[in-house]
Amino acid sequence: MGDKATADFSLEPTRNKEFIINAKEPFNAEPTPERLIQSFVTPTEHFYVRNHAPVPLVQESSYFLKIDGLVGKPLLLSIDDIKQQFEKVTITAHLQCAGNRRTMMSDYKKVKGVGWGIASLSNGVWAGCRLRDVLEKANAFPVGNGAKHACFWGLDVGCPEDEGKPYGSSITMEKAMDINGDVILAYEMNGETLTRDHGYPLRVIAPGIIGARSVKWLDKITVSSEESTSFFQRRDYKIFHSGVDWNNVEQYWDKTPSLQELSIQSAICIPAPNSHLFLPFSIYGYATSGGGRKIERVDVSLDGGETWDYAELMGEEKGNSNKYWGWTLFRYTIKSLATNHHHTTGNKSSIPIRICCRAWDSASNTQPKDVKDIWNLRGVMNNYSKS
Amino acid sequence: MGDKATADFSLEPTRNKEFIINAKEPFNAEPTPERLIQSFVTPTEHFYVRNHAPVPLVQESSYFLKIDGLVGKPLLLSIDDIKQQFEKVTITAHLQCAGNRRTMMSDYKKVKGVGWGIASLSNGVWAGCRLRDVLEKANAFPVGNGAKHACFWGLDVGCPEDEGKPYGSSITMEKAMDINGDVILAYEMNGETLTRDHGYPLRVIAPGIIGARSVKWLDKITVSSEESTSFFQRRDYKIFHSGVDWNNVEQYWDKTPSLQELSIQSAICIPAPNSHLFLPFSIYGYATSGGGRKIERVDVSLDGGETWDYAELMGEEKGNSNKYWGWTLFRYTIKSLATNHHHTTGNKSSIPIRICCRAWDSASNTQPKDVKDIWNLRGVMNNYSKS
Ligand SMILES: [Mo]
Ligand SMILES: [Mo]
Repeated sequence: MGDKATADFSLEPTRNKEFIINAKEPFNAEPTPERLIQSFVTPTEHFYVRNHAPVPLVQESSYFLKIDGLVGKPLLLSIDDIKQQFEKVTITAHLQCAGNRRTMMSDYKKVKGVGWGIASLSNGVWAGCRLRDVLEKANAFPVGNGAKHACFWGLDVGCPEDEGKPYGSSITMEKAMDINGDVILAYEMNGETLTRDHGYPLRVIAPGIIGARSVKWLDKITVSSEESTSFFQRRDYKIFHSGVDWNNVEQYWDKTPSLQELSIQSAICIPAPNSHLFLPFSIYGYATSGGGRKIERVDVSLDGGETWDYAELMGEEKGNSNKYWGWTLFRYTIKSLATNHHHTTGNKSSIPIRICCRAWDSASNTQPKDVKDIWNLRGVMNNYSKS
Repeated sequence: MGDKATADFSLEPTRNKEFIINAKEPFNAEPTPERLIQSFVTPTEHFYVRNHAPVPLVQESSYFLKIDGLVGKPLLLSIDDIKQQFEKVTITAHLQCAGNRRTMMSDYKKVKGVGWGIASLSNGVWAGCRLRDVLEKANAFPVGNGAKHACFWGLDVGCPEDEGKPYGSSITMEKAMDINGDVILAYEMNGETLTRDHGYPLRVIAPGIIGARSVKWLDKITVSSEESTSFFQRRDYKIFHSGVDWNNVEQYWDKTPSLQELSIQSAICIPAPNSHLFLPFSIYGYATSGGGRKIERVDVSLDGGETWDYAELMGEEKGNSNKYWGWTLFRYTIKSLATNHHHTTGNKSSIPIRICCRAWDSASNTQPKDVKDIWNLRGVMNNYSKS
C-alpha cells in the first residue's frame, strides 16, 4: 500500500530534543505533560507535531496557492498576494489531534494509529487571512448551491496510508464561510513566520475542529459538492462503533461521518502519575471543547471519580464573537486530605489517591467516565475521565 | 416564599385530556412517549406545556412589548408593529425543558423539581420576527460595549419560587444577535396564532438552548450588562456538582454557570418499558442536541449497553446555515435475536432484552452512561444512556 519506501526523510527540520517522539518517519511528537502547560500560549518549539509524510521543502518564490472547483474565478495566489490582498487577522486557538490520548484507549483494547499520550494538543497564536475572504474573491458558489465542502490538499506527498498521495482533508462550506468561524490561512505562528514543521509557508487553521482539518503546506483549495476524497476524510478520522473491527470496517466507512468539531476534553498534566506528593500540593491540567464552546467548569476527583470538587480555571481567552478557541488551564490545590474516602496505608503520612478530572462545556456536555463507552478501532476522540 | 396563595388559576385554558399531568398549578404536562413521536412536527395540542405561574389572559389590543436597558432608542411595539415593521421568518425547532427525564434521575438519589418523564420536549414550526432585527431597531449597544445579555420578562406574574414575580430569563447578546442563531419573537406556532399555553400573543424562541430561555407571554426585553436577575437564571437551571446539597447550595449559586445550550440527548419512546414484543419489531425514539449541532448517529443496544448497533435516522430537517434546531427521530428494526449476549429464560420464544440508546452529535459528544456521573440536586440535563 503506497510508496512508503520512496518517501524521502533526508530534509526534515531540526527538532526540540525534549520532545517525546511517537513516530520518527513521518515525524510525530508531543511535549511532556509538564512542559505542555507552562504557559497559556505554547512556544513554537514545544508545539506538538503531527505529520503524515516527509516535511516538504517549499520555496516561497515559487509557491502559489491554487483555488479551484465550484468557483466563478479560479485563483493562483503568491504569499505576497495573500498578505497584500486580504486583511490580516490574528486568533488564539488550540489545535488538537483526534488521536490525543490514544495510548490510553489501548489500555482497554488495542487500537491502531500513532500512539499519543495526553499532549497531542497545543495552544497557539495564528495570523493570516480569512479563508472566507479568499473564497469570496474566487467567487465561490453559494453554500447550498452545490458548494458544500472546502477541500484542502497539502504539498506533503508520500502519505503511506494513501498510496503516496499528499495529505488532504475538508471542512464544510458553512464553517469555511462563517463570519464567526474564524477559519484562516495562516502564515504566522506565535508572531513569527511559520516553521517548516508547522506548515511553512501557509496552512489552514480551522479552530474548534480536529487538528486533521488544519492542513499544513497548503497547496490547493477545491470547492466541491463532496467531502475530500482523501483517505484521511473518507476512511480515517471516524468514530466507528465499538462492534466494528478490522474484518468488517469496510462496510462502515461510508456510513460513518467524518469527524469535525472537537468533543469535550481534559487531562491532568501535573503531577505525573505515581508521584509522591507533600501537602500542600496543586494539580494542573488543561480542558478544551470544540466549536468555540466555553469551558464552564472542571471537576477534580481524588478518589477515582467517586466524589468531585471544582477546580480553579486560569488563562481563559476568547476569540471573536464569544468563541473560545483557546484551551483553558486549571489548578486545584490540596491543603489537607480527608481520609474518609481514601485508602490509607496505615501510615498517616502516606495516603494513596486516584486523581482524575472532567470538564463541562457551555453546552452542558461532559466526558464519558469509562473508556469502554467510547472505545473505537482507530482510537480517536478519547476523552474518558476515569483515571 | 412568595404569594403562591394569591395566584389565580381560574382562567386557565382547556387542555388535551391525553396529557400526562406532572403538576396542576402551575400547569406542567407532557404527551405520552408513544404520542410524542407520531410526527416530525408535534401538533400543538400535544406539545408539552411547562408553566411557572398561572397563564396570563392577554388582550392583543392593549398589549405592547417593551425594549429598554442598554439601547439607544427604547421601544414600545404592538403586535401589529411587530408584524408590519419586521421581516417574518419561519424556523423549525424543538424545545426541551432542562428537566426532561428528571424523574429517572431520582431513581438514583432524590432530586427536587417538577417530575418529568421523557417527553418534556416537542418539535414545532415557529414564525415571527428576528430578535436581532428588533434589537437593531432599538439601537442596542454593541456586544462588548457593556451589552452582554438580553433579559426577558413574561406577563405571567405569580411564580411561587420567585416571590410572585413574573417568570424571567436571559440569553447572551452573542446568541441574540447571531445571524445564524435564529432567535425569534414568535407569534405563530405550527401555522396558527400562538395558543395561550404557548405564550400568546408573543414569545421568545431561542433554538438550541434550554426551553427555560424561550420566555412566553413576553412583556419586556431589557438589554443589560448582567444576566437576568430572575430566580430562574441565578438560582435555578444550573448543574451543581454531585457534592452540592440543600445545606450548602447557597455557596454554589453564584459560581455555577446558568444553563444555556442543550447537551446531547436521546430516548426510546416505543416500545414502552416492560412490553412483550413479537419478532420482527421496531424501536422508535428521538435524539436532540444543542447549538444546532447535527445528530450524526444513534446507537441502540439490546443488552443494557454492552453492545451497540446503528439506528436508522429519520425526519431530520435543518434550519438556516446548517443549524439543526429540530429533533431527529430514529428507528431500529429487529428481525431476529441472537441469544449469545442475552439472558434466555429457557423458553426460546421469550428472551428478556434491555433496550437503551445513545446519540452522538457533530461534535463527537455522546451521552454519559450512568446517572451517577451527572446526578445533580435539581435534576437538570439528565441525559444518561443506561436503561
Ligand atoms: Mo490528527
Ligand atoms: Mo424548563
